[in-house]
Order: sequence, then structure tokens, then C-alpha cells
Amino acid sequence: MNRILIIGAGRSSPYLIKYLLEQASECDWEITVGDLSLDLAEAGVGDHPNGRAIQFDVTDASQREIEITKADVVVSMLPPLMHFDVAMDCVRLKKHLVTASYVSDELEALDEEAKKSGVVLLNEIGVDPGLDHLSCMKIIEDISTSGGKIQSFESFTGGLIAPESDNNPWNYKFTWNPRNVVLAGQGGVKFIQEGMYKYIPYHKVFSRIEKLTIPEFGIFEGYANRDSLKYREVYGLENIPTLYRGTLRRPGFCKAWDLFVQLGATDDSYVMENSENMTHREFINSFLFYNAGNSVELKAAYHLGIGIESDELDKLKWLGIFDDTAVGLKNATPAQILQHILEKKWNLDSDDKDMIVMLHRVYYELDGQAKELNSHLIVIGEDPTFTAMAKTVGLPLGIATKLVMTGEIKTPGVQLPISKEIYDPALSQLKEYGINFEETTLNV
Amino acid sequence: MNRILIIGAGRSSPYLIKYLLEQASECDWEITVGDLSLDLAEAGVGDHPNGRAIQFDVTDASQREIEITKADVVVSMLPPLMHFDVAMDCVRLKKHLVTASYVSDELEALDEEAKKSGVVLLNEIGVDPGLDHLSCMKIIEDISTSGGKIQSFESFTGGLIAPESDNNPWNYKFTWNPRNVVLAGQGGVKFIQEGMYKYIPYHKVFSRIEKLTIPEFGIFEGYANRDSLKYREVYGLENIPTLYRGTLRRPGFCKAWDLFVQLGATDDSYVMENSENMTHREFINSFLFYNAGNSVELKAAYHLGIGIESDELDKLKWLGIFDDTAVGLKNATPAQILQHILEKKWNLDSDDKDMIVMLHRVYYELDGQAKELNSHLIVIGEDPTFTAMAKTVGLPLGIATKLVMTGEIKTPGVQLPISKEIYDPALSQLKEYGINFEETTLNV
Repeated sequence: MNRILIIGAGRSSPYLIKYLLEQASECDWEITVGDLSLDLAEAGVGDHPNGRAIQFDVTDASQREIEITKADVVVSMLPPLMHFDVAMDCVRLKKHLVTASYVSDELEALDEEAKKSGVVLLNEIGVDPGLDHLSCMKIIEDISTSGGKIQSFESFTGGLIAPESDNNPWNYKFTWNPRNVVLAGQGGVKFIQEGMYKYIPYHKVFSRIEKLTIPEFGIFEGYANRDSLKYREVYGLENIPTLYRGTLRRPGFCKAWDLFVQLGATDDSYVMENSENMTHREFINSFLFYNAGNSVELKAAYHLGIGIESDELDKLKWLGIFDDTAVGLKNATPAQILQHILEKKWNLDSDDKDMIVMLHRVYYELDGQAKELNSHLIVIGEDPTFTAMAKTVGLPLGIATKLVMTGEIKTPGVQLPISKEIYDPALSQLKEYGINFEETTLNV
Repeated sequence: MNRILIIGAGRSSPYLIKYLLEQASECDWEITVGDLSLDLAEAGVGDHPNGRAIQFDVTDASQREIEITKADVVVSMLPPLMHFDVAMDCVRLKKHLVTASYVSDELEALDEEAKKSGVVLLNEIGVDPGLDHLSCMKIIEDISTSGGKIQSFESFTGGLIAPESDNNPWNYKFTWNPRNVVLAGQGGVKFIQEGMYKYIPYHKVFSRIEKLTIPEFGIFEGYANRDSLKYREVYGLENIPTLYRGTLRRPGFCKAWDLFVQLGATDDSYVMENSENMTHREFINSFLFYNAGNSVELKAAYHLGIGIESDELDKLKWLGIFDDTAVGLKNATPAQILQHILEKKWNLDSDDKDMIVMLHRVYYELDGQAKELNSHLIVIGEDPTFTAMAKTVGLPLGIATKLVMTGEIKTPGVQLPISKEIYDPALSQLKEYGINFEETTLNV
């Protein structure tokens, strides 16, 4: 095997492409990078002798077949909903596939055929999901090998702004897909705590948070992810009393974000009347009761139960949501309008750096002694192209792709990176690139 | 035309069947009542010489065709999702159809063909929708005929327990489909007030309520219905500054119901783990934070921001939600479990009577004078079969069916009861059956 096809040269691809081109020199591989934008693909490849940039339209079935036929392993960086056609072709043409996305039901349905054809369909090998799987499985394996029994596993990830670029009252900027940030928590949350199932409806997710400290990086807060329960099976922790996965923000973010949730401003289920001609101020006012005598600010503070001089209201004001600026979006949902307003303020400056934070906190018992393990990772981006997000997504993907190319990953079918054959070599190679977890264990 | 087919002899049909059988004696009609349960159909028809009871399975296409072919007008009392096959047959076989349900998109799509075939498809002619349309259109027509200009139209309906049977702290029992009560408000609310669009997310619907008084019947509270905006077009009030439709409860209901919403106990979007073996108490506990030292009652009071001795907590306790009683439902959603618990307490006793309350409040200007019109209707049920709900659903349906039979309603296509040809005769006949609005107008 010596030919790799990378589909998609967008924001998450720079490190992936760089890594695989480096390996290509050594291993004598040919790397094709395809993107709808030939410029993007060319920028990724540069003048590397082992690289080829092409304009690639994944909806063009014949081009898809031609390019996939030429490859041994395909890496799909497409949005999750667009993987499926590629996956079908891969199974049919007997080519391995690597993606950073969650396994969809339709992809899962290809498992049997992939097994029959000896095709590896490796998914969830970016940062979250991806790096979380690798590092969690390593911790779980280490503890159970030593004879320990895990009581509680909590795992948090955050895509944040680096301390040196953190200069707004939210301590937050969009370092990744803004839409996912605006819709986070919708549908509510489930997890298990001390053997009891717990459910949090969407409108309570951002008020039931946890404070977490990382040495040298200070305090964070975590809110719960959608479904922690399914990870019991994925991680082989079927009988664990406590399993909780969450997302990290800086302190104060959740309380202020919750105001948008309480207003209904994150709703994506209906289109607002006359959204095109609405101002930011009118957008917020549409969620408040009618009272001709009061300002929108006062009504908002009263409705939300916060002070007119509070930090939370200051955070809202800083975003410009009370301004008479036109929204200018046609037939938009509240979530789309809110995202549009936020993107004016939470955008990255040209010299801003992002930061990926991951934290695992595990309680277990070993030889009658209760123990607490903390493991954390901090990755700071280099610049707006070589971001921490691109690094923590791209390197696990690249390394996994190499392991598939070299035959070290070879179990066919729909796979997650949870077996020793993947996480051991992947974690040790990631270490060389500065993606390294700091682990401490103490008796409690 | 002299043959009517009534499909469905359930809780909403007694008055409809009774009314049409009375008319049948006079007009020499034949009435066929079909239900999956032959017993129910026979109980409805009794030994009336003009009536025929049959066992009827609406999913049996051949029986459907046979029976619809025999009829001139079909009245479908089926659940909303089951009307469509009947409607298709009616259009194809050129038979008129009358229902009490909202017009679905797929039914709306039959409009053109129904018009071509000269078939009347009359919908939304029960109580709400139905009686509300009739009475609203009459008020709107009266005001505009007199030269008045409507500024604000608010309309409320409630299916409640009659004062003589009102003996629980919620002042509420299920007098109709409990599932609709549990899911009410989900998806949020939209309306227009003083020319401004207003949106309320689901988790705020039951805290933004309005108090309303009806002479001799006391105080009610109203919460907003899903979408008031669409009624601007239906009622020909395109430029009205304020339009609001709501549902009535007795005071205190909404504040206590809101506790279930805040907990997440009305969620119908996911199945709870191990619901079969869960107790009422565990059900509530699953929405509360983990704290081994505190009772579920205390955690609930704290979480919900209410006193441990408050009326609201007493209302919850009275429902038995803190009891160690098994739920016993397999793979159930929170909403299904909550409904199950409520049905043990909010059921009608054998001598209970229900009550329908409708209230319209209209502000308009006439000759430079601001005016307020209040129009209300109270209907008390006779017994658990001949309920106020069955009466206010069945009589508008029956009367409309007669008007179709006699050719007074003849405009083909998908119709709502908003034209004078329907509401004038319908309202005057309903008066004879004690369904009568009391109207007062005052200068403001």
C-alpha cells in the first residue's frame, strides 16, 4: 500500500496533510489531497514531491470512483453527513477508510460487508471523539491491569482560546464550528452517578456545572455532554457507578450562556418572522414580555433574574445584542441569528492562538485504597492555520492512517480507536508531537 | 342525500350520534356508526330505527370502500393521523367529509382534487378547533360590519372539571386526552403583541401566564398556545397588532405544572433506562442532582426554588410522585411515565362532571371610542358519557354535517368553518342546545 487520498483540505486538515507528507517522504507514499477548492488543496500540498492536489467534488460519483480506485487508504475530512457515499465506495472497491466523525447508523450498517471485504472503516479518531478514546482506554487498561476497580470516570474536553489571546469578558472565541457551540446541549443530557441514572433537560444543562482546576492553567467549568451512558459499553465499563462526559469553558461562561438558553435565543426549530429587517435589539426583545415603558436591557435583566449592573448583563452588552444593528439574515432561526451576532465578536484575530484542554478524573480502588487519578492535556495552537484543534484532530488521524497503511491496524469492519493495537502506538507517537497527558494519582 | 357514516364511537361521539339520530327521524336519514368495537357502536346507536351499528376497521381498505360508497356524508372521529385514508376515499368516491381535526399538510394537498370533484372536506369543526372559529368569526364580522377596527384579539379555551366536582388541590382532572395535556406547550409559542412578534420557549410557557375572570365562575389563568400567528390569515386579521390564543386552567395550576417542565419530566424525546423497575420517587430523583444526604423532597424543593412547605410542593406530594410505588412501564419516556402517574390521581370519578370554558377578549375602536368586548361560554357536562367536551365537539360536528346534508354548506375543497354560511346557522342552532356565548361590551 502506498497511495493515500485525503478528501477535504479545510481547517482541520493542515497537520494531517503535513504529517502524512512527512511520512510519505520516508515511506515513499503518494498523497492526493482533494478539495472542492483547488486553491485549498494546493495550499495544503505545497510543492511536496510526494503530493498531488486536485479539485474534487465528492457528489460526483464518477470522480469519486476514479480517485478512490487509485488509493489504498482514504481519509475523509468531509462533514459527517457526507461520509456515507465515500464509505460505500470504499467497501465496494476494497479500500480502507479513516474519519474523525461519530459512527452514524447508516455507516454502522456497512459493518458486515466491510468485514467480508476485509476493509477497515476506522472512525472517531480526531480529538473528541478520538484523543479522548485513546487516552481513556489507556487509563482504563492500566488500572484494570494493576487490579484496580474503577468507581467513577469523568472526562472533559474544551476547544478554547489560549491564555495569551484571551481578551474578552466571555474568555471565549469560536475556535471551531460555531453552529455546534450554539446548539450544544440541545436534546438534554443523560449520565449515571453513584449508580443512579440522571437526566438534565436542555434548559438546565448550563446551570448544573462543575468546577475543575488544571495546574498552571487555572479554573475551568464543565457542562454535561448529550449521552454519557453509551460510553459504558464503548469503554467496557458496563457496571461503573459514575460516568460523566462534559465540555470545558472558562468560569462564568455557562452562567452567561444560560441566559440565551433561558430566553429561547438558541432555538433552531422555527424561523422568525421578518428576521431580515430585525435589529439585534429587536431579536432579544422578541423573547421578552411586552412593556412599552421599559428598556430592553431592564426587561432582560428582570426576566432573567440578574442585576442591571451584573457581570452577566455586561457580557451580553459586550456582544452587542442590545445594539440597533440590522441582523440582515433572511428566514433565519433564533440559533442562526444568535450565531451571526456572536460571530462578529467571538472571531479569531489574525494572531490569536487556540487551546485544546482535556481532563480525565477517575476514582478507583486498589488493594483496599481509594485513589484519584487526574490526567490532563493542554495543547496551544501555533497560529490561525496550525491551530491546536487542527493538531489534535489531524495528528491522531494521520497516525491512525499510517498504522492502517503499515498493516498494524488491520481488523476489518466499522472500528473505534479503543483497542490496544491502536491506542498504544498512537499515544506514543503523539507524545513526540507534544500531545502528552500529565497524570497524577493520589490516595483519597 | 340521506346516508351518513360516522367512523368512531368513542368518547367524543355520544352527542354527535344522538343529534344525528334525532335529525334522522325527522329527515328520514340512515345513520351508520362504525367502530373497531361493535359494542361501542351499538351502545351509541341503541335501538334507533334509523341507526345501524357495524364493526369497522378503517385500515381495511375494502371495508372502507364499501361503507364510504354507501354513504353521502362521512364524519370521521378518528385520531388526526388516521383521517387521510378516509379523505382520499371520499375524494375518489365523491363523498363529503366532516372532521374535528386540524388540517394536516397531506389533507391540504387534496384541496384541488376535492374542488374538481365537488367534494366538501370540512375540518376543525369541534370545540377547539371549531366552536372557537365559529364564535371568533361572528365577533370579527359584527365589529367590522359596524365599522369598528380591531386592535387586539385574545381567545382562550379550557377543558376543565366542573365546580361541583372540583375536589383536588390542582383544581384539575383529565377530561380529555391526557397525552396532549402532558405535552402541551412543547416546541414553544409564538404570537404578536402591540405589533411586536413574541416567542416563548417551552420552559417559560407556564410562567408567562395571564389571569382572567369570568362572572360567576371566578378566576382562571391562561397560558399561550403554540402558534397564534397563523390565525391572522385564517381570521382575516392580517394587520392586527395583538393576537393571542391560550389555554385556560384554574389559578395555581400553571405554576405547579411548570415544576414538571423545569425538572424535564415532560420530555417525550428519549426512553428512560430501566423505567419498568423504577418507582415514582426514583423517577423524580433522576432529574435531581446527586446528594446522598438529602431527601428527594428537599432536593426537589431546592432545585425548583420553592419552599418545603409551599402549596406547589404540596400539589406534587398529593400526586404521589414521591411515593415508592412502581411505575411498571417498559421503555417509557419521561412524558409517558408522568402521564401514567397523573392518571392515577386526575381520573374522573363516576359522578364527576367536566366543564368547557371559552373566553374571547377583544379591544377595538369604534367612532373614536376604545371598546372592550368580552364573550364567554361555559358548558357543564351531564355525566361521564355526556360530557361538556363531547357536547361541544359533537354538536358543532353534527350541525355542520346536517348543513352539508341539506346542501347549505356546499363550497367544495378543504374548508374551515369560518364563512358566514357556516357560523351563522351553526351558532343559532347551538344556542338551542345551551351552547351560548354571553357577550358584554364596555367603553375603555
